Amino acid sequence: MTAVLDTQVLPPVGVRAGAFGNATHLACRACGAQSPLGPFYACMECFGPLEVGYDFPRVTRAQIEAGPKSIWRYAPLLPVPADIATFRSTDPGFTRLVDAGNLAADLGLRKLHVKDDSGNPTHSFKDRVVAVALSAARELGLNVLACPSTGNLANAVAAAAARAGIRSVVLVPSNLEQQKIIASAVYDTTLIAIEGNYDDVNKLASEIAGEEEGWAFVNVNVRPYYAEGSKTLAYEIAEQLGWRLPDQLVIPVASGSQLTKIDKGFSELIKLGLVEDKPVRIFGAQATGCSPIVQAYEAGQDVVAPVRPNTIAKSLAIGNPADGPYVLDVVRRTGGRIADVDDETVVRNILRLARTEGIFGETAGGVTVGVTAKLIADGDLDPDGETVIINSGDGLKTLDAVAGHVGPKTTIPPRYEAFTDFWKGYTA
Amino acid sequence: MTAVLDTQVLPPVGVRAGAFGNATHLACRACGAQSPLGPFYACMECFGPLEVGYDFPRVTRAQIEAGPKSIWRYAPLLPVPADIATFRSTDPGFTRLVDAGNLAADLGLRKLHVKDDSGNPTHSFKDRVVAVALSAARELGLNVLACPSTGNLANAVAAAAARAGIRSVVLVPSNLEQQKIIASAVYDTTLIAIEGNYDDVNKLASEIAGEEEGWAFVNVNVRPYYAEGSKTLAYEIAEQLGWRLPDQLVIPVASGSQLTKIDKGFSELIKLGLVEDKPVRIFGAQATGCSPIVQAYEAGQDVVAPVRPNTIAKSLAIGNPADGPYVLDVVRRTGGRIADVDDETVVRNILRLARTEGIFGETAGGVTVGVTAKLIADGDLDPDGETVIINSGDGLKTLDAVAGHVGPKTTIPPRYEAFTDFWKGYTA
Ligand SMILES: Cc1ncc(COP(=O)(O)O)c(C=O)c1O
Ligand SMILES: Cc1ncc(COP(=O)(O)O)c(C=O)c1O
Ligand SMILES: [Zn+2]
Ligand SMILES: [Zn+2]
Repeated sequence: MTAVLDTQVLPPVGVRAGAFGNATHLACRACGAQSPLGPFYACMECFGPLEVGYDFPRVTRAQIEAGPKSIWRYAPLLPVPADIATFRSTDPGFTRLVDAGNLAADLGLRKLHVKDDSGNPTHSFKDRVVAVALSAARELGLNVLACPSTGNLANAVAAAAARAGIRSVVLVPSNLEQQKIIASAVYDTTLIAIEGNYDDVNKLASEIAGEEEGWAFVNVNVRPYYAEGSKTLAYEIAEQLGWRLPDQLVIPVASGSQLTKIDKGFSELIKLGLVEDKPVRIFGAQATGCSPIVQAYEAGQDVVAPVRPNTIAKSLAIGNPADGPYVLDVVRRTGGRIADVDDETVVRNILRLARTEGIFGETAGGVTVGVTAKLIADGDLDPDGETVIINSGDGLKTLDAVAGHVGPKTTIPPRYEAFTDFWKGYTA
Repeated sequence: MTAVLDTQVLPPVGVRAGAFGNATHLACRACGAQSPLGPFYACMECFGPLEVGYDFPRVTRAQIEAGPKSIWRYAPLLPVPADIATFRSTDPGFTRLVDAGNLAADLGLRKLHVKDDSGNPTHSFKDRVVAVALSAARELGLNVLACPSTGNLANAVAAAAARAGIRSVVLVPSNLEQQKIIASAVYDTTLIAIEGNYDDVNKLASEIAGEEEGWAFVNVNVRPYYAEGSKTLAYEIAEQLGWRLPDQLVIPVASGSQLTKIDKGFSELIKLGLVEDKPVRIFGAQATGCSPIVQAYEAGQDVVAPVRPNTIAKSLAIGNPADGPYVLDVVRRTGGRIADVDDETVVRNILRLARTEGIFGETAGGVTVGVTAKLIADGDLDPDGETVIINSGDGLKTLDAVAGHVGPKTTIPPRYEAFTDFWKGYTA
């Protein structure tokens, strides 16, 4: 698709042919300068972030449909080798697209689907990005899989490394929910708790990535590959809708990578002729306690000023979002918007999603459903448009958020009369 | 397959044609007497448990493969209407069959697959059985979906009822893990905590089922339908192996329903010509603190004496297992065995599965992996046989079991020198 224009772009040194499939180079998202495929993430000209470029062959729907029931069915569109499915990975993806009629009625939407990524191996969309990063690490000869994480990424990295049989190191804020700490530590990863918030942890990770040899920090030095994994959300949504695009999407935003890559995924499907071209409006969702991109959006700015996070939505608590400017570009260009809801609304909307659709999302899901309601109330989302929202994580990891709000309706001894006494009063 | 022999077997009253698909009747597992399809679970002749009987048409692999990516692809083999996929359910099933090479090497097995049912909507195999029970309840005009539960079933019932838009009531022991209580209560079910163990809860449920009109206790009065849902584990394993049967399976056992229905599922596939006939040895796994079927097996008995459970494997803590005698029959008939491991072994094997395959199972998974190791050590499992083990639930629901055993390797301030100080000592 994008031709290699620059003769400086050489095949990566010491890397087997086809290591990155149809990917041909890395391109700077700021200045467009190209770099070879390698463990690079910042432009050599301007330090801008790098993105994977491809020269796609013809890819057909039938070819994809005949592939494995995981993200690897889209291998030709990812920076992974053609034989990727033969390596040990957690094989994430191909999660349910739930026709959410009850929630649609509750929200006043005509047609709503929930892309339920809690069905992934470690129950968040992070399994997608980690699987692609793991492949890049392997092909580049890096032998420690690492990350700074707000929790979900740590779970995904630790599990993927265990399955692949390589070493992993995960850095998490020491105040992280106990559930997410245990759920990483079980995989026998080297889990290091850092006294600080996610942005502190992230800064330390960048330092380590710069100094240590052979480390693949999935969201730092192999971030260009990692980020491509989120495109599979777009591919799956289109395929599961019968090779069609929806009218509008609402997507949770932390660094903003998922949102920008879903947009990229749709563009690729259109350019490849796999779906008909049509406008898709993309909306972002943040928690008020960490809404730097919303603040920039509302101030009409193109750059994002960092904030200090204070929200129960820990998985979205990135105060200094790497893809902030690109999120602003996508939501403005597609006629979307980015909005926020407070923590109390987050909890109410976790329960709303559970009550209406039987889907127990984490705090990020509460943010997304809450923002969806807000966007409808504000007249930004078209109630008649076909809508998709992303449930990117699992409520079992953020039980604390709802623990004080739900519980048994009663506690009784194991006798029928005790039951009928309760039931008569309860249903009266 | 089974012809209707008895003229007493009438079409169910007030139920639409095709409500139960190719199912034709209920048959007593003890005396063989037939009952019509309806909300019946005990034989009118001998009070024995009832099982669904069918008259299967020709079913082809291609037909199944063209179906939805859920248990409904096997609709012709279940007591559900042909249009089942058009009703709102959680659409469980079609979970990963993981080629578990690392764990195989660790255990000394040539070829091992883990059927990972933690990928279901509420992260246990119970979504399968509940989906079928929900269909039966709907077709029978019952309007409260209910259960006594050790936790997973409550999650599944509450979620399925939410999605289907019907009322649910779940009865749980009041000492149940807090995680499982919250994870049911979020779906806005009527959760009632009972001061007693699971067997007390179960007894109370039977009383309520006998007295209240319109209640579908999924594992009591619609149990014959419910139980059929576990056959889909057998169907999926066979299909995912390329329409082949494995040599041996290890299956966790509480009531014993899952184990007996996996055996039934394999037999059906053979009779329908969907797989080649071959012997499959079936092994059961219990926790020592609740191993009534193991005790009967080892004493050479055909009946199971109830025990009072005392184990961290709460999901398997059924002291009075309904399908006990049938489990004994299956493991003896197929050349298998049922064995147990203690709680400390359970924890070690939860961690073993996580460390080797990146799969975080609940305590039941630890029981199954632990018993697998024991069966190999005892020479009961053939190390060269193709083996499948079932991971039936999710570690996120039983974090307490491992919480004291794993955690951060260190806690440090967010400075590079603090990291290198740790890392030097750690890798030295
Ligand atoms: C559950 C969940 N949803 C959404 C996100 C946002 O992802 P991104 O950083 O790509 O914006 C995260 C990031 O950690 C997450 O854990
Ligand atoms: C996770 C898990 N595995 C296995 C079982 C055993 O199922 P059965 O009662 O069919 O033997 C249960 C039952 O509650 C369970 O929750
Ligand atoms: Zn640049
Ligand atoms: Zn009988």
